[in-house]
Amino acid sequence: MKRMEAKGRKLIRELILSSEASGPSYEKSNSENEAFGVCKGEEIIVIGWIHRLRKLKSVTFLILRDRSGLLQCILTPEQTEQLNPTLESVVKLSGRCAPSKNDYGHVELVVESVEMVSQALPELPIQINGTALEVQLDTLLENRVLALRHPKEQAIFKIQAAIGDVFRDFLKSRDFTEIHTPKLVKEGAEGGSNVFKLDYFGETAYLAQSPQFYKQMMVIAGMERVFEVGSVFRAEAHSTSRHLNEYVSLDLEMGFIEHEDELMALETELLRFVFSQLGENFESELSLLEVTLPKVPLEIPKLKLEEAIEILKTQYGKTELEGDLDPEGEKLISHHMFKESGSEFLFLTHYPQRKRPMYTMPCGESETHSFDLIFRGVEITTGGRRIHQYQTLVDAMRKKGLDPSMYTSYLEAFKYGVPPHGGLAIGLERLTALLLGFSNIRRTSLFPRDGQRLVP
Amino acid sequence: MKRMEAKGRKLIRELILSSEASGPSYEKSNSENEAFGVCKGEEIIVIGWIHRLRKLKSVTFLILRDRSGLLQCILTPEQTEQLNPTLESVVKLSGRCAPSKNDYGHVELVVESVEMVSQALPELPIQINGTALEVQLDTLLENRVLALRHPKEQAIFKIQAAIGDVFRDFLKSRDFTEIHTPKLVKEGAEGGSNVFKLDYFGETAYLAQSPQFYKQMMVIAGMERVFEVGSVFRAEAHSTSRHLNEYVSLDLEMGFIEHEDELMALETELLRFVFSQLGENFESELSLLEVTLPKVPLEIPKLKLEEAIEILKTQYGKTELEGDLDPEGEKLISHHMFKESGSEFLFLTHYPQRKRPMYTMPCGESETHSFDLIFRGVEITTGGRRIHQYQTLVDAMRKKGLDPSMYTSYLEAFKYGVPPHGGLAIGLERLTALLLGFSNIRRTSLFPRDGQRLVP
Repeated sequence: MKRMEAKGRKLIRELILSSEASGPSYEKSNSENEAFGVCKGEEIIVIGWIHRLRKLKSVTFLILRDRSGLLQCILTPEQTEQLNPTLESVVKLSGRCAPSKNDYGHVELVVESVEMVSQALPELPIQINGTALEVQLDTLLENRVLALRHPKEQAIFKIQAAIGDVFRDFLKSRDFTEIHTPKLVKEGAEGGSNVFKLDYFGETAYLAQSPQFYKQMMVIAGMERVFEVGSVFRAEAHSTSRHLNEYVSLDLEMGFIEHEDELMALETELLRFVFSQLGENFESELSLLEVTLPKVPLEIPKLKLEEAIEILKTQYGKTELEGDLDPEGEKLISHHMFKESGSEFLFLTHYPQRKRPMYTMPCGESETHSFDLIFRGVEITTGGRRIHQYQTLVDAMRKKGLDPSMYTSYLEAFKYGVPPHGGLAIGLERLTALLLGFSNIRRTSLFPRDGQRLVP
Repeated sequence: MKRMEAKGRKLIRELILSSEASGPSYEKSNSENEAFGVCKGEEIIVIGWIHRLRKLKSVTFLILRDRSGLLQCILTPEQTEQLNPTLESVVKLSGRCAPSKNDYGHVELVVESVEMVSQALPELPIQINGTALEVQLDTLLENRVLALRHPKEQAIFKIQAAIGDVFRDFLKSRDFTEIHTPKLVKEGAEGGSNVFKLDYFGETAYLAQSPQFYKQMMVIAGMERVFEVGSVFRAEAHSTSRHLNEYVSLDLEMGFIEHEDELMALETELLRFVFSQLGENFESELSLLEVTLPKVPLEIPKLKLEEAIEILKTQYGKTELEGDLDPEGEKLISHHMFKESGSEFLFLTHYPQRKRPMYTMPCGESETHSFDLIFRGVEITTGGRRIHQYQTLVDAMRKKGLDPSMYTSYLEAFKYGVPPHGGLAIGLERLTALLLGFSNIRRTSLFPRDGQRLVP
C-alpha cells in the first residue's frame, strides 16, 4: 500500500533500479539469469506517456515516460498497429523485462499487450523529447503543461518544492509557528501604491503585497516566532525579468531580537541548511540542470549601503546612485564582493529611511536597522528590525505622509506590550531562478503573472 | 545557537522542566539543594508578558508569560515601584531560581533586577488571564491580537499548523509534489458565480475559488501527484458559521487512478495519520482545549447519496431533500451513521451530475464518480474523479450552459495525453473547527473574512 500505484502498475524507476542492482546482466550472454532482480519472469504493467518512438520494419522502440523515469519498450508491428501510438499519448503496456543495453538502463520491456489510455493529437505544438527544451520563453509559457513534461522543466519545480520544505523544516526546528494570514486586506497597502483593488461586498479591499502587518501582529500576539509561505501580489505595471505580479513569499518574523544581526545570522544558517539539503537529496535534478550549488560562508560579508555606493563610485565609475542601488549597481557590487571574498552572497545594511517602509526601525538620523541580501547580483531578501513603539510608529507614518487612521487595527496591536522584533522575506521564484542560473524569473513560476500574462 | 534566544534569555519551559526533573525540592525544607537542577545559583534572564499581577504589602507576585509557559516571579515593593507593571506589558526580569510550590511549577524566580521593555496601556479591552477567554466571538475577533495571547487561543493555531504539516508529510511520503498555482486567474470561475473580480491592467481577473484547473493541469503535465496548501476565495455574500470568504484549502490531485475508491482510501489513511500525529505531539494543546481525537476507522463507511436521502426520509421524516443534503441533513445522517457504526466519518457518494461541477466524471446517466466526506455532521471534503477526455469535457461544459471558449487554456491541456485522475480538497479551518468542537469556523481563522469583516 505504501506506493499505492494503480492496480499492478510498476514505476519505471523501480525497474531500472532493480536491474542495476543485479548488475549489467546483458554482458553475461543474453539469456535470462538468476541475478536479474525482481522482474525476472514476472508480468509487468507500466503506464505513462510515449516520450520517443522509432518504428522499424520488424520492431518498434517505444520510450515510455512516467514521473519516475524513462523505459525502453519493444513492440511488434502488430502491437504497434493496434496501439496506433502518437508521441505524448498515455498508454498502458504489459509484458516481461529482459536484460538490455540501452540509453535508459540495463533493462527493456518486451511488450505482450497494449492499451491506448488517452490519445494525443498527432501534431504537438512544441517538441519535448530532445535533450533540452529548445523553445523561446513565450512559447514555453504558452505551452506550459506540455513543456513541463520535459524532465528538465519538471526538475525546476521539484527543487522549488524542496526549497519551501527546507525553509519550513529549518524554522520549525527553531520553534517558529506557521501561520496563514489574509490576502484580502483593507489596511495592507503599506505605501499606498502598487496594490490590486477590488470590491468586497461594497467595500474596497486590496490584495496583500506581503503578510508584513499580520506577521508582526502574530509576533505581538505572543507567538513570538512565525513564518508564512504564501502568495503575495504587486500591481507593478512594468515588466522586468526579475519581477512577477504574483509570487510566493517565504516570510518570517521573530520577537525578542536585539539587533538585525540576529536576523542576518538566522538567514545565513537557513541558506546553509537549504543548500546542504538540496545537495544531499536532489543530486539528480541538480545535475540534470547542470547546477553547482553556491557555498554560503559561515559569515556572509556585510557592507553598509553607503560604503557600497562609495565603492561603485570610486572603483567602477558609477556616480549616479543615491540612497539605493539599481540593478546594475547590485550586479557590480556583488561581483566586487565575489572577487574580494569569494562569497556569492552579500548583505547590504543601513538603508536610508526615505527608501524603507514606515515600519522600519530608524538608526540614527537618517538610516535604518535594515538590510538586503544580494545573491549572484540580485536582491533576494529585504529584512530588518521593526518599530515596536506605538508613538514612534505613528510619527514614522506621518513622516511618510501616511494617515495613521488608515492603519487603525495594525496600530492597535502596539498599545498592549510589544516585543522588539524583526523579520525578512525571500521571494521563492527569484531564489530558485538565481540558484538555477535562469536570467528570467518566469522560468521558475508554474504560471507566471505579468502585465501580459493572465493565462494559462 | 540551537535555540538562538535573545542574549542570555531563558525560556520559561526550560526552567519549569529542569525544576521538575530534579523533583519537588520544596518538600525537602526550603533550603537550596544539589538536586535543584540547572538553575541553582545561576543568574537567569526571562523576557515576556505580564500575565497576572498580585501586589501585597511586602511582596509582588508577577506571573510572566512567554511562548513556552508561565512562571511565578517575586518582586520587592521597590522593584515593583521601579517597574510600574501593568498587565500585558513586556518586561525583562533577571534573578535567581528558588524551589517553590505554586500553580505554575516547582520553581519561582526571585527577581534581582527589572526592566520595562514595552508598557501596555493600563486598561485592556478584554481580560485574557482567566482560565477561559470569556468574551463574545465578535469581541474576540475585534481584539484578535490580544485574544491570541490566551494559551487556549494560541493552542488552536499550533494544532492548525500541525494539521498542515502532517498533510504535507503524508503526501510527500507518497511521492506527491507541492505546487504553487496562481490566485489571479482568468478562467478560474468554474461555475461562473461567487467569484471576486478585479481589474488586472485593463483585463478582468478573478480570484481563484480553488486550484482545481491548475492542479489537474499539473497532473497532466507529468507530475502525476501534486498538492497545494493555499488561499482560496469565495464571494458568497451569505454569512454562516461554516463559511469564510477566504480560507486555506488543502488540495491534492492524483493521476492514474482507476476509481474514486482510491481517493477515499488515500484520504482515510491521511486522516488516520493526521490524528495519530496530533495525539503523539500535541497532547498538551489538546488537553488544554479538552479535545478527544476522533477514531478514524480502517474503512470509513460509505453511503450513496440517494440511500442517505432515503434513510432521512423514512427514518427521520425529512422529505424535502432533492439531490443534495442541507446542513440539517448532513447532521442527521452523520448522527445516524455514528449510531450504526460508531464512525464519526462518513463518505457520501454518487452525487448527481446537476449538483457537481462540469469537470466531474459522470457515472451512468445522471450520477457522478464523486464523494463528500462528512465529519461530525459537516462536510469537510469534496472529491472525485475528473473527466480526462477532451470531447467529454467540452460536452459537459455545454450541458452546464458554459462556453468552452472561456476555458481555452484548461481545455488545451486535454489534447495531448491525459491520465485518468481525480482529487479532493479539505478546508483547513473547517477541519480544525470540527476537530476542536467549535460551532463557528471563525474561531479557527486568524483573521476571518466574511461579509462584515475585512479588518483586522
